[in-house]
Amino acid sequence: MSEFETIKYAIDDGIATLTLYRPDRMNAFTPVMMREMISAFDLADADDAVRAVIVTGDGRAFCAGADLGLGGDTFDYAKRGGKWGEDSPMRDDGSVDFDHPGIRDGGGKVTLRIFACKKPVIGAINGAAVGIGATMTLPMDFRLASDSARFGFVFARRGIVPEAASSWFLPRLVGISQALEWCYSGRVFGADEALKGGLVRSVHALEDLLPAARAFAKDLTSESAPVSIALTRQALWRMMGAAHPMEAHRLDSRMIWSRGASGDAKEGVASFLEKRAANYPDRVSNDLPEFSPWLDDPAW
Amino acid sequence: MSEFETIKYAIDDGIATLTLYRPDRMNAFTPVMMREMISAFDLADADDAVRAVIVTGDGRAFCAGADLGLGGDTFDYAKRGGKWGEDSPMRDDGSVDFDHPGIRDGGGKVTLRIFACKKPVIGAINGAAVGIGATMTLPMDFRLASDSARFGFVFARRGIVPEAASSWFLPRLVGISQALEWCYSGRVFGADEALKGGLVRSVHALEDLLPAARAFAKDLTSESAPVSIALTRQALWRMMGAAHPMEAHRLDSRMIWSRGASGDAKEGVASFLEKRAANYPDRVSNDLPEFSPWLDDPAW
Amino acid sequence: MSEFETIKYAIDDGIATLTLYRPDRMNAFTPVMMREMISAFDLADADDAVRAVIVTGDGRAFCAGADLGLGGDTFDYAKRGGKWGEDSPMRDDGSVDFDHPGIRDGGGKVTLRIFACKKPVIGAINGAAVGIGATMTLPMDFRLASDSARFGFVFARRGIVPEAASSWFLPRLVGISQALEWCYSGRVFGADEALKGGLVRSVHALEDLLPAARAFAKDLTSESAPVSIALTRQALWRMMGAAHPMEAHRLDSRMIWSRGASGDAKEGVASFLEKRAANYPDRVSNDLPEFSPWLDDPAW
Repeated sequence: MSEFETIKYAIDDGIATLTLYRPDRMNAFTPVMMREMISAFDLADADDAVRAVIVTGDGRAFCAGADLGLGGDTFDYAKRGGKWGEDSPMRDDGSVDFDHPGIRDGGGKVTLRIFACKKPVIGAINGAAVGIGATMTLPMDFRLASDSARFGFVFARRGIVPEAASSWFLPRLVGISQALEWCYSGRVFGADEALKGGLVRSVHALEDLLPAARAFAKDLTSESAPVSIALTRQALWRMMGAAHPMEAHRLDSRMIWSRGASGDAKEGVASFLEKRAANYPDRVSNDLPEFSPWLDDPAW
Repeated sequence: MSEFETIKYAIDDGIATLTLYRPDRMNAFTPVMMREMISAFDLADADDAVRAVIVTGDGRAFCAGADLGLGGDTFDYAKRGGKWGEDSPMRDDGSVDFDHPGIRDGGGKVTLRIFACKKPVIGAINGAAVGIGATMTLPMDFRLASDSARFGFVFARRGIVPEAASSWFLPRLVGISQALEWCYSGRVFGADEALKGGLVRSVHALEDLLPAARAFAKDLTSESAPVSIALTRQALWRMMGAAHPMEAHRLDSRMIWSRGASGDAKEGVASFLEKRAANYPDRVSNDLPEFSPWLDDPAW
Repeated sequence: MSEFETIKYAIDDGIATLTLYRPDRMNAFTPVMMREMISAFDLADADDAVRAVIVTGDGRAFCAGADLGLGGDTFDYAKRGGKWGEDSPMRDDGSVDFDHPGIRDGGGKVTLRIFACKKPVIGAINGAAVGIGATMTLPMDFRLASDSARFGFVFARRGIVPEAASSWFLPRLVGISQALEWCYSGRVFGADEALKGGLVRSVHALEDLLPAARAFAKDLTSESAPVSIALTRQALWRMMGAAHPMEAHRLDSRMIWSRGASGDAKEGVASFLEKRAANYPDRVSNDLPEFSPWLDDPAW
């Protein structure tokens, strides 16, 4: 177990579970939670024992959104001198430097970190997922929901806008019309509507949610090479934004050459031909190809 | 009511209704209609009393396509000296300057104007929507259809190609396979196939179509801040084409900072905490953030 | 009939059928098959008698993937001196020049060739489609399957990664979550799951598969102008990756101007007004617009 304040992070049988843990505040999102979530994904990526990551919430909520403890000033970062105590983008004359990294949205830092993860990521949405609680799930590969889950892209009802890079993720997941419908109205909706709209993969009784997520994580990873999964995740998500399939051809040609000479490929083919389970030698921590910089995020 | 010739434009209870109005010609599209549609969207965007726009057709058609009154020369702009009386891209030697703005497709001018709209746009497809009558609906956020509506991407049956930037919109709305199937064959199809294929959100009896569209417009906007809706519309549509979620992070970080300090955000959070209806102070006409140029269209 | 070794290529009633033909090896993919498939698409594009292309497999498989005759060294191109006998990207010091065209993935060469095809392409998946056998179908416009078809994106079970530019195609066809689920697990699945997941358009009894594919090809092309179909195919697929609808507007404005003055447009409109079948004069081999370089693929 970890030393985190606002989350719990535990590994069992090859699966890391990140549990949002401010149950008295419905797991409302805070600067500390942002940093701890990013640290937890750093741990999961660095740990070859972790084959997949599940994100869930403690108690009856998944994450009720930004903590509104400051009331109407919650989002008034100018008044607060900067976002969450980081370097301030405020100039001496009181104007804002919109290119300063101090204006970076905290939800977006989390979703970009999840986007860059090298392991499959499964959201297990146990209850209310509202605001950042909804948008933080969008870069996860899959969302499983309990029948008591609720979702709300409520930003327009708070006078702000969708954040956490959700304008990139949400239309790609559910189509532009469904995305706009949910974001315009800001309405909170249930698991059935989320399933029908393509936001979640499946709906489960609450007591079955984590077991289903864990079984699914096993199905995804048990017979596959870890390095292959890491590269697959990066390639598919990133090529969602590529202008032309030639970009994918450039990338996968290099990956196939590189991985084709690996011990994983020799073992993968040999075990298939010999009709036995594979024992892949390569590790995500050490064996990603030398051209992995091509998979880095662009700078802020 | 407006002074338009080929459309009607009326506002009622916060909703602008743009009615294509050449009922004796099945509302066939003309250069005048192109200019009047663009003007109507300019009016809607500039008018803070307008919260949403509905586009429908008068009589039994929605829009039967380009007016074919010129027969086989309808699309022969070279012979006609230019497109619709605008500056001609024809050189003195009879060749065409393909970079000249005089070759710009009129349908595309309309769909790009709708794309840039700051209010939700709902198509209420009351009858035949064929050619430009079908493609003009694609940048609308939602398409509701009557059970007598028919759709046809008939361009390949007229010896031309899909226009109005539909090659960008249609595959994103319905998937590449469905888009190609409709565009290859040029076949006219009914509301049920449009619903099954993801082109329309819902199908209604004709007499219920406009009431349903109006009720939906109300549901989308009644509890949300107008500036939030305008920015949401622009962000989600534009990020459909962005290469990486970092582009969305760059944009929404600035929007969250900017809107977070607004009166809308203070009122949005306060009204939520006080469990009362919000009364947002900001106006689309005046309060879009200073970096809104980032949301401008690229030049022709 | 053709002189190919590993495929059969035949034209009947305006439809070219490319049959993968190594039935004793379950039509496993080889360097020869790669070159022959590309040649067959060159033939189909150059032949105005061909209105559509169907790709299917001989015997009980569609294509079982890469031929694993070399066992664990199958994908070890460095050991083999280069990919399939082409110029080697190996430097004298034993390192790999990752920019050398000799590392280009053979599956990607095929899928980029299909992507550039000027005729509708229909996959008729008669049996197992695994590895490159699955990914080669992704740039086809439509996939029809027999009820005995099986699909597998098995790369991660072989220690390699999805290839043939599938990271660009697959998430656009079935969504990122479904694409990742299939690619992570590497599991082989049946036609029903492929239909439910959006990978195939329809499922047929085996004896009905080719007749259904041929009837569908006829429905797509019988009333449409061949040049219109060629430009439609290129525009819609390519605009899937475009950043903004302005790119489509730039392209279709030029196409509408160019095709609007064509004999096809005059005949298309005249035949419609005269309620008779059209007899389009233009040919794909000769009448593509002068700006067709804009539709070329980017360089490797």
